[in-house]
Amino acid sequence: MSSIFEPYPVSLVHQLIEPGPTVMITTGGDQWPTIMTNGFNMPVRHDGTLAVVVGPWDTTYETLRRVGECVIAVPDTGLLETTVDVGNASSAQMNKWEHFGLTQLPASTIEAPLIGECVANIECAVEDDTLVDAYDLWILRARAAWLRPDAETPEFHHRGNGTFTENGQLHDLRDRMTKWQHLT
Amino acid sequence: MSSIFEPYPVSLVHQLIEPGPTVMITTGGDQWPTIMTNGFNMPVRHDGTLAVVVGPWDTTYETLRRVGECVIAVPDTGLLETTVDVGNASSAQMNKWEHFGLTQLPASTIEAPLIGECVANIECAVEDDTLVDAYDLWILRARAAWLRPDAETPEFHHRGNGTFTENGQLHDLRDRMTKWQHLT
Repeated sequence: MSSIFEPYPVSLVHQLIEPGPTVMITTGGDQWPTIMTNGFNMPVRHDGTLAVVVGPWDTTYETLRRVGECVIAVPDTGLLETTVDVGNASSAQMNKWEHFGLTQLPASTIEAPLIGECVANIECAVEDDTLVDAYDLWILRARAAWLRPDAETPEFHHRGNGTFTENGQLHDLRDRMTKWQHLT
Repeated sequence: MSSIFEPYPVSLVHQLIEPGPTVMITTGGDQWPTIMTNGFNMPVRHDGTLAVVVGPWDTTYETLRRVGECVIAVPDTGLLETTVDVGNASSAQMNKWEHFGLTQLPASTIEAPLIGECVANIECAVEDDTLVDAYDLWILRARAAWLRPDAETPEFHHRGNGTFTENGQLHDLRDRMTKWQHLT
């Protein structure tokens, strides 16, 4: 191999491509609506089709199996500590809404609540669970979405190891998107 | 609905959770190794299992089908313009390596080349193509990975509309990762 690079552990490559936005996911729940923190998510199509990884170690998993609906909520950096703490607690053992001071707002198409403190909320239905058994990978389809009018650069990114980066400088390269002009 | 939020188009929700790192993907190719730009990617497990969306509109798709291997290369902000331009050109029509001044370096486990100018390169094999027909979603498994020793906060994020944000301030919250201490 070239001397430009040095080997990097395969078991840590998620830290290289993990910095998608850290989100919270809510479901209807039994005692109270569940909330979890999630860093493994991506868009699949430009039509509201999304993918998330939610495994049986999360209380959300069981509700998602049964109800087939969830809200993906995007926190801003003001919620960074809360978001981390939400991900380190269990909805089976506590009402995270009360404990962390988060506000349930009714969604328009599903029972899972929006999170009032987040800058964006996406109401989703499970569209395909083919890869759930093998990979805990859910294909979701957005049914409605909500954005706070005052949102600027809302999200932050988990670097996979307990450190996070918030968004920095914006680069506007829309003029170079010649092949994908319809996206700009 | 509450007055906190205003409706957001479902067809644009990818812009809310798209800001994973923008990457380039290389495959072996016929005339020359292909390179494409990709913004739809995520980790699936903490063991090198990854997911990417690559559709038949990309030259890479055919090679990935046939060869089952690719390199995911992570550019830094110094390569921002080049990365956008790579995504707006076609490997079927030009040798992007020559045209954009990118350097092929041999990978250690597959034929697809690393990109010398990127800060990280992940050698991948296709592990599962169950959802390729329906969603163009490929499950990949990293076989080896390479990092430039001088890499800091390498990646930038496509906001889904031709604008990009680079990484900003780092927040170290490893002490709060009580449930996930093994990741820190």
